Amino acid sequence: MPKISPARRAERLEQILDGARRCFARHGYEGATVTRLEAEIGLSRGAIFNYFRSKEDLFVELAVEDTATMSALWRDAGLEAVVRAVLELDPAWLGVYVELVRRVRTDAEFRRRIEERQEAIVPVNRARLEEAQRHGELRDDLGARELGAFVNLVLNGLAFQRASGDEPPPVDVVVRLLEDAIGGRARRDTRARTPSAAA
Amino acid sequence: MPKISPARRAERLEQILDGARRCFARHGYEGATVTRLEAEIGLSRGAIFNYFRSKEDLFVELAVEDTATMSALWRDAGLEAVVRAVLELDPAWLGVYVELVRRVRTDAEFRRRIEERQEAIVPVNRARLEEAQRHGELRDDLGARELGAFVNLVLNGLAFQRASGDEPPPVDVVVRLLEDAIGGRARRDTRARTPSAAA
Repeated sequence: MPKISPARRAERLEQILDGARRCFARHGYEGATVTRLEAEIGLSRGAIFNYFRSKEDLFVELAVEDTATMSALWRDAGLEAVVRAVLELDPAWLGVYVELVRRVRTDAEFRRRIEERQEAIVPVNRARLEEAQRHGELRDDLGARELGAFVNLVLNGLAFQRASGDEPPPVDVVVRLLEDAIGGRARRDTRARTPSAAA
Repeated sequence: MPKISPARRAERLEQILDGARRCFARHGYEGATVTRLEAEIGLSRGAIFNYFRSKEDLFVELAVEDTATMSALWRDAGLEAVVRAVLELDPAWLGVYVELVRRVRTDAEFRRRIEERQEAIVPVNRARLEEAQRHGELRDDLGARELGAFVNLVLNGLAFQRASGDEPPPVDVVVRLLEDAIGGRARRDTRARTPSAAA
């Protein structure tokens, strides 16, 4: 096999992942045949499976990519940005997750492969949450793990509603309630003061 | 057709719905053939479809039953009870919802039939939320509709995590964060006082 430069390799990876994402969204996971993957990606099966061992590997990589994107967005741009991003995800792509729910629940090996990769992302976020707790931006009477899990729960709810075609609550309502749930001392003091002033 | 008493009729309905729920959970929606429905329910197709026009009708009825159960539980036993109930739902049954997500999103008529029935339940709950707002148990700077939608969002997240075999956050963590998000003045005052006392 001819050696290619790291830059060329990264470009190829992106081409494959982008095409696979489109193909899964358009045809569903089961419907994304190798022939359709080739057409959407614009590369032969030999080239594709030189980078990813299987269709399953492609999905795992895309799921990990989503987790990393959302995680970085939360860290760098805040809660509102990540809520907004989830609400802008393509319902057809979310449908691929939904299609694989049973498989994730019942196939321990498949599950382990996704979790293993996602766990590499979690500690970075947890450290960020702990720092926010030290600065009083987040409540500290619960662990960073619990706060992160609650945010994740709400994002899962949004993704599921969106996949179902439900109308989720407006972004600002979700962000406000979420911040009031996990927010630190400063935020709580403000909330407690407001109604007293109004009374 | 012989006339049967209302009590006998209600009993039959329950028998059919319980059996259909077990059958869907065991075989999935697509896998629940008429023959399997007959076996699980213990009635002939003639008897079953005398009560419900189609398999689709059976699912709609079960979905509405779930909404009504959760709604009544929240109203009568509180938030913790409903969170706990969602966490105890059979993942295999939740998988049926997941299986139908695409259909609900893309089939407007199917969607309308479910929503129409669920909307009859929502006003009762909304009235209960508004009452809780007047008593200061829930915040009143957002509408009852928004508070209800947020709770629903969190419950959807829990259901989706459970269907995926994920470990949701502990019940008490979810309830505490949820109550802090939607709670009224009394709760906010307590939360604001606690850290000051600790400082």
